[in-house]
Amino acid sequence: MQKCTVKDIFKEINFSESELAIVEEKFEEIYPKKGEILLLPGQPVPYQYFVCDGCLRTYFISEIGKEYTMQFAVNDWWISDYTAFFTGGLSMFYIDCVKDSIIYKISKEDMELLYKQVPQVESFFRIKMERFFASFQKRILSDLALTAEEKYLRFLKAYPNIEQHIKNYHLASYLGITTESLSRVRKELAKK
Amino acid sequence: MQKCTVKDIFKEINFSESELAIVEEKFEEIYPKKGEILLLPGQPVPYQYFVCDGCLRTYFISEIGKEYTMQFAVNDWWISDYTAFFTGGLSMFYIDCVKDSIIYKISKEDMELLYKQVPQVESFFRIKMERFFASFQKRILSDLALTAEEKYLRFLKAYPNIEQHIKNYHLASYLGITTESLSRVRKELAKK
Repeated sequence: MQKCTVKDIFKEINFSESELAIVEEKFEEIYPKKGEILLLPGQPVPYQYFVCDGCLRTYFISEIGKEYTMQFAVNDWWISDYTAFFTGGLSMFYIDCVKDSIIYKISKEDMELLYKQVPQVESFFRIKMERFFASFQKRILSDLALTAEEKYLRFLKAYPNIEQHIKNYHLASYLGITTESLSRVRKELAKK
Repeated sequence: MQKCTVKDIFKEINFSESELAIVEEKFEEIYPKKGEILLLPGQPVPYQYFVCDGCLRTYFISEIGKEYTMQFAVNDWWISDYTAFFTGGLSMFYIDCVKDSIIYKISKEDMELLYKQVPQVESFFRIKMERFFASFQKRILSDLALTAEEKYLRFLKAYPNIEQHIKNYHLASYLGITTESLSRVRKELAKK
């Protein structure tokens, strides 16, 4: 696995030494193992997570036990139950670890502190949010408008090299299709 | 219709007089009429829009002519083709005016300037983005996990008093259901 530093998280920023020290002390490095659960529903969500190496997944389980995958986060992605993280409510989602990972986590309080202490960090996150937002807008459109095959191809493009780590029913639950449809799509594509 | 000032857009901020003057000169007030189109696909997206009063809608039309509604924006909401607006690409969406509206628009360049000139504005938009993000996360989950009836009820809660202005097939295309399903859902609910 590939380690990274807090400096790598903020590639775009040129911190002074004292700023870097302030930023570094806000992050904690953790090493969740495949299958480990980082968040359960109904809990406060104090952290967001930066994936240095590995893969985390947020998902929702309905009353009748059906599972829906909201997001996979691979290297260089951020992940959390953002509704709860940003609004201070309780989680709706599970977050689990898809493969052994190296993760940096930071709390909401420490982020707010950072915005004041190192204002470049606020710009950094504003820009990150804009990009997330654009990718969520694409996701919503994709859920509404694309065929199963188009959704699958879009996933492969957005998440290269992650498919082999993901269970078929997790991927299907992300795409909003059945595992049978996913198999059919793969067979059709193999013929092309 | 209810007019508003630039100050109303930034309710949470206490600007000094000179700051307010800087902010005000970046916004332009426009009065689009019902049916007017503010954005076509394949264009640069220089503006985002704040709905002072009225309703705007972003939608996508597929190759086979099917229409998908991404967002309705009612009073106090922001709207744009955010993927293009934030990334500088070309639009995928139409934006049209659902009912006569009073809108403030601001360009991307002016926003970037504002962030430098009045840093509170950057915090304001970072927090707005967080809330948008939370609402988009809910929308994705809703598209994946809710029944037609649950989606419809969620819409009514999120957009009170707007249903009467929206065409049935626009609402259905927002909910990702057919107009027949929408009628069925309304009938079922009327019986309850």
